[in-house]
Amino acid sequence: MARGVSSSRDAVTGGSGGRVAGLLAELEPLGELVTDPDVLASYSHDQTGPGMVEAGRPAALVRPRHTAEVQAAVRAAARHGVPIVPRGAGSGLSGGANAVDDCLVICTERMGELVDLDPASLYARVQPGLINAELGKAAAAHGLRYAPDPASFEFSTLGGNVATNAGGLCCVKYGVTRDSLLGLEVVLADGTAVRVGRRTRKGVVGYDLTALFCGSEGTLGIVTEATLRLMPEPPPLATLAASFPSLGSAGAAVARISAATTPAVLELMDRTTVAAVEAMAPQGLDESVDVLVFGCSDAPGGAALVEVERMAALCEAAGATLAATTDEAAEGRMLMSARRLAYPALERLGATMLDDVCVPLGTIPALLEGVEAIADRSRLTIGTFGHAGDGNMHPTIVYDAADQGEVERARSAFAAIVCLALELGGTVSGEHGVGSLKRPFLDDELGSSRPLQRAIKAALDPAGVMNPGKAI
Amino acid sequence: MARGVSSSRDAVTGGSGGRVAGLLAELEPLGELVTDPDVLASYSHDQTGPGMVEAGRPAALVRPRHTAEVQAAVRAAARHGVPIVPRGAGSGLSGGANAVDDCLVICTERMGELVDLDPASLYARVQPGLINAELGKAAAAHGLRYAPDPASFEFSTLGGNVATNAGGLCCVKYGVTRDSLLGLEVVLADGTAVRVGRRTRKGVVGYDLTALFCGSEGTLGIVTEATLRLMPEPPPLATLAASFPSLGSAGAAVARISAATTPAVLELMDRTTVAAVEAMAPQGLDESVDVLVFGCSDAPGGAALVEVERMAALCEAAGATLAATTDEAAEGRMLMSARRLAYPALERLGATMLDDVCVPLGTIPALLEGVEAIADRSRLTIGTFGHAGDGNMHPTIVYDAADQGEVERARSAFAAIVCLALELGGTVSGEHGVGSLKRPFLDDELGSSRPLQRAIKAALDPAGVMNPGKAI
Repeated sequence: MARGVSSSRDAVTGGSGGRVAGLLAELEPLGELVTDPDVLASYSHDQTGPGMVEAGRPAALVRPRHTAEVQAAVRAAARHGVPIVPRGAGSGLSGGANAVDDCLVICTERMGELVDLDPASLYARVQPGLINAELGKAAAAHGLRYAPDPASFEFSTLGGNVATNAGGLCCVKYGVTRDSLLGLEVVLADGTAVRVGRRTRKGVVGYDLTALFCGSEGTLGIVTEATLRLMPEPPPLATLAASFPSLGSAGAAVARISAATTPAVLELMDRTTVAAVEAMAPQGLDESVDVLVFGCSDAPGGAALVEVERMAALCEAAGATLAATTDEAAEGRMLMSARRLAYPALERLGATMLDDVCVPLGTIPALLEGVEAIADRSRLTIGTFGHAGDGNMHPTIVYDAADQGEVERARSAFAAIVCLALELGGTVSGEHGVGSLKRPFLDDELGSSRPLQRAIKAALDPAGVMNPGKAI
Repeated sequence: MARGVSSSRDAVTGGSGGRVAGLLAELEPLGELVTDPDVLASYSHDQTGPGMVEAGRPAALVRPRHTAEVQAAVRAAARHGVPIVPRGAGSGLSGGANAVDDCLVICTERMGELVDLDPASLYARVQPGLINAELGKAAAAHGLRYAPDPASFEFSTLGGNVATNAGGLCCVKYGVTRDSLLGLEVVLADGTAVRVGRRTRKGVVGYDLTALFCGSEGTLGIVTEATLRLMPEPPPLATLAASFPSLGSAGAAVARISAATTPAVLELMDRTTVAAVEAMAPQGLDESVDVLVFGCSDAPGGAALVEVERMAALCEAAGATLAATTDEAAEGRMLMSARRLAYPALERLGATMLDDVCVPLGTIPALLEGVEAIADRSRLTIGTFGHAGDGNMHPTIVYDAADQGEVERARSAFAAIVCLALELGGTVSGEHGVGSLKRPFLDDELGSSRPLQRAIKAALDPAGVMNPGKAI
């Protein structure tokens, strides 16, 4: 350990060297300070595609077990002016947990306790390092569930889910992380621990600081405990898969379904993605298929099949060539298999830049048409799939990472897609966060609220020590 | 008008006199400045029970039609150091819109336009003075609805709903105002107009300032436009009414229903309220009835009746003496009539103090038992009813406003109920807001987050000009 410290000390130079050395000397007696460069490297970035965002070299890593240890680390870093980068499992996709040079990484992976689960009052209190799926299992033992289901639910932490306001497939019916978040304990930039929010289902006392911290990507404080709302386990799903000959007809189907029903899942994938899936694992789809739409219902009282049949009728009225429904679980998984393969099938084709934009529902066809035009112009494959019922799409740019010209075209296409989403009245990130990846587009989206956003940051973290260069 | 101005000028004295005179001189050319004391008196308070909170004497009232007029009024007031009290319809129940002496009241009642309704993207943009029910009508023309349904929905404004984060009966399934709020335009304390939020269903860019303004009771700025989410009109309701011999059995039924189903409505009223309703409009309930529970389902696919029958079975398993269900609209209204009469029946008995606390679901029986003990101790009638599925209860204290001793006992009982809710892990206001009524209890609830709450206020309104003495 001591050798690790000195090697890190050697690595830092200039003005930050003394600050870092002071911090390390102070943190070392607290135990388990990590300065081994190889270990640090693995804690220096999230899962954003290679080369898409920078990751700096941290000076040290701590993995506290308790709030008090988080406070001690934050206080020490603040005292020495060393920037702090908080992280959970590092499963983010926008560089939000990427290190900056000479920072202290505070990883919550050892704070994985389920503090309390109250099945009568339908909430759980968790440490931030608990994995989303672990809470799901604990809730299921009481016939309950924790609704938010980011694709990373089997390995992402609940603290990370809160910090990014993570989404997922079931948001369309059950909302994003914020909608299941009742209260928080947060360690602020000065090391103070505060509790915000509540454990009741409703409450209007004080400003909604819980929502303010949710999605703030560690730039306002570090979540050390979350109180999360639990729900009844939903009835079994019935499933719909429908094929469309055009973007317009698929867009109309999504709009009609959204205006008339409450799907538990409403997904879409475009022809580029369909072709990639066919090439990887043939689904028997013919070439006329332009768009696939997937829907699920978890309507109670035995009505789930009735509901997906209603969605199927809306698809057919909008021009679907085929609409299959089932309430059998195995058949439902089969109908959804193409959707599950969407990203793996595109990843097979090369390096990928996974975008995450969200537009008003009525503009989904315009977004998809625009993305096709960008793909043509860029001479790149761009497959789009995503959460159609929320307007939250993941155009995925495939490129050859070894071809610098192609990398440049991919970057330009990425920016063009983000700008298109803004033009359509949308947002540059529906669920992955700004991190460092989307910061160049931040000002365009925030517009007149920029000074206010900065005033909040300045009020809570005047020295700018918390996750600098991210989110805001 | 000029006489109104001078009479108001005469009324103000001391240090604030010059400031107010300066403000009036500046605002007068803008037109329609109201200084008539009788008119001002009617704009000086909300609907909080008489004598429960103070209301000051405003210096003037403006009723702008556009954002620019709100900005002009705010800038003028800020320049002269005159406090601003924003208001909509004044239907609040916690003094949040009550005037302070020598303030400028800015009432949004003339900003009642539906700016835009996009049925394809399922949102509406509204001016703040639009009545909740008017948006409901406009949405219904497209087969859509705006979900939040405070009891005041036929006369309260959407700006007021946003400012208080208003609740209602359908929150238990569809959430509070914040859950249907996508974005805002707000005029800040310095007169700047900013847009926050978005019109997409999801979005994680920037701090969630939309949630921060929602429920801030006009202390951070004045809402001049709101973008609100619309939903499909739900299927017809089926209804359940069940009677229980004890608080414990009714509480168990609420817990079981909440853990297993998704009611669209889940309400409760205690024996004091039942007796008041029987005395006003006999429902044929026998004396053994201790608690009534009401539930509704709007499950799709014809399953609503199945769902309320499931709730009825859960009630019976928990000890209900009777559980009636129906999916006929007229019969459903009959089953719910006792609930609708709850507050009118209690109001007939004397002056009322309507409380609004919210506790974790599992503690509802403890809350109701505690309220009964407080009623006994205070020698007062206290009837409790409310949104059981959210744990949000309205203990209603009946007293003789002419009997000073009784008024004092009523105040003490009110405070005891609020403290009991806090002891049970609850909040002092589930949906009515802090206003000025609940401020004495604010610090107990906010605890360690008090400095943070104040830091937010200081960052957004450093001079403290926006609705001083409210909410925070």
